[in-house]
Amino acid sequence: MDDFDDLTERVKLFAEAREWERFHTPRNVALALVGEVGELAAELQWKADVQLAAGVDDELSTRLADEVADVLIYLIRFSGVCGIDPVAAAHAKVIRNEERYPREWSRGSAAKYTERQHP
Amino acid sequence: MDDFDDLTERVKLFAEAREWERFHTPRNVALALVGEVGELAAELQWKADVQLAAGVDDELSTRLADEVADVLIYLIRFSGVCGIDPVAAAHAKVIRNEERYPREWSRGSAAKYTERQHP
Amino acid sequence: MDDFDDLTERVKLFAEAREWERFHTPRNVALALVGEVGELAAELQWKADVQLAAGVDDELSTRLADEVADVLIYLIRFSGVCGIDPVAAAHAKVIRNEERYPREWSRGSAAKYTERQHP
Amino acid sequence: MDDFDDLTERVKLFAEAREWERFHTPRNVALALVGEVGELAAELQWKADVQLAAGVDDELSTRLADEVADVLIYLIRFSGVCGIDPVAAAHAKVIRNEERYPREWSRGSAAKYTERQHP
Repeated sequence: MDDFDDLTERVKLFAEAREWERFHTPRNVALALVGEVGELAAELQWKADVQLAAGVDDELSTRLADEVADVLIYLIRFSGVCGIDPVAAAHAKVIRNEERYPREWSRGSAAKYTERQHP
Repeated sequence: MDDFDDLTERVKLFAEAREWERFHTPRNVALALVGEVGELAAELQWKADVQLAAGVDDELSTRLADEVADVLIYLIRFSGVCGIDPVAAAHAKVIRNEERYPREWSRGSAAKYTERQHP
Repeated sequence: MDDFDDLTERVKLFAEAREWERFHTPRNVALALVGEVGELAAELQWKADVQLAAGVDDELSTRLADEVADVLIYLIRFSGVCGIDPVAAAHAKVIRNEERYPREWSRGSAAKYTERQHP
Repeated sequence: MDDFDDLTERVKLFAEAREWERFHTPRNVALALVGEVGELAAELQWKADVQLAAGVDDELSTRLADEVADVLIYLIRFSGVCGIDPVAAAHAKVIRNEERYPREWSRGSAAKYTERQHP
């Protein structure tokens, strides 16, 4: 069992041991996920790009890691209650993105694939 | 290399091959993450709890998996540009939550740990 | 001057009196807005539809009003720094929605206008 | 009736004429609001601060106005279904913020009021 699978199992057992499955409906967990992403965004609200240009300092990194953790935990839990394998879904999406954004066309451009002129 | 590490590497190489590192600043990726979580929320906006009580049907599950994938990809990318290990951060957070929410106290209750009466 | 214009003016003066204009860039305020919407979502995360079916009780309503206030304040501030008139923009949008969703076609249906069969 | 009250009334009538009240539960509308804020965030995801420093150009302003409109419409609708007066709530919040952030203490500082040293 790898680290991510172990985390997934642990997140599931955590809820089961507390009899929280009945609270973990798709919409409850989705709203919790939104709340955590909001906290992550709030950590960056007064940090202008220029302040982060030299990298994220240790204090901010610690705070952001805490928010990333919460987002990941709820994303895993959401996936669990909806019957989704998040890593498999992400692998499939990256493959699709590799087709949508060919290297030559995309190099150094932030244009969306729907704007691409097909030859 | 496990599946999650492989995904992390792939997400990084995807950006590098397209010279997108300069677009992937912490705040750019955070705003993209927010956008994807918004799409996930929007998939559930007209799905009342009662409609999902018997489980998420295949069509919705496929749509949600696509949004989960996007959220996970940007979360991995955000972690990468901020120097965060998301799986390690989540493991650490679950351990902290196990302390904050003792089984006996938390069983079947959605109360927040800050509301817990210490003996 | 009506209530909303008065609020808009007050929000602007509040920032100016504290010399906060330089913090109020479009992306800073957008991230703050996201954070507040996250707090609003979090208030509803463990409130199943069925618990709210009979109406929102006073305690929750007070908490939600506080979050609505924060969202509205940042939305007004965002509009201000981006040169947008939010009420005029919303009026224009409702007019467009009235065209997109004709009464007969839309009655009792949550289908999106893009799914509408044109005759 | 002022512009904002007129908008509020119009948003309500729009839903009633289409018999959409039963879709407009607090959580449905909250999730829709989250989706619209996500679209607003996504408009800014590849716009670095430096690109917006000279102001928001007309094309982006038009796109942002469309998202601001959607956010405001759902915020009004959310307030309606929860029995909240958003403008009154925001006025009350600004008054509280004026107390939390005294001018002298707050001038030019983004510190949160909870960090303020009381004399």
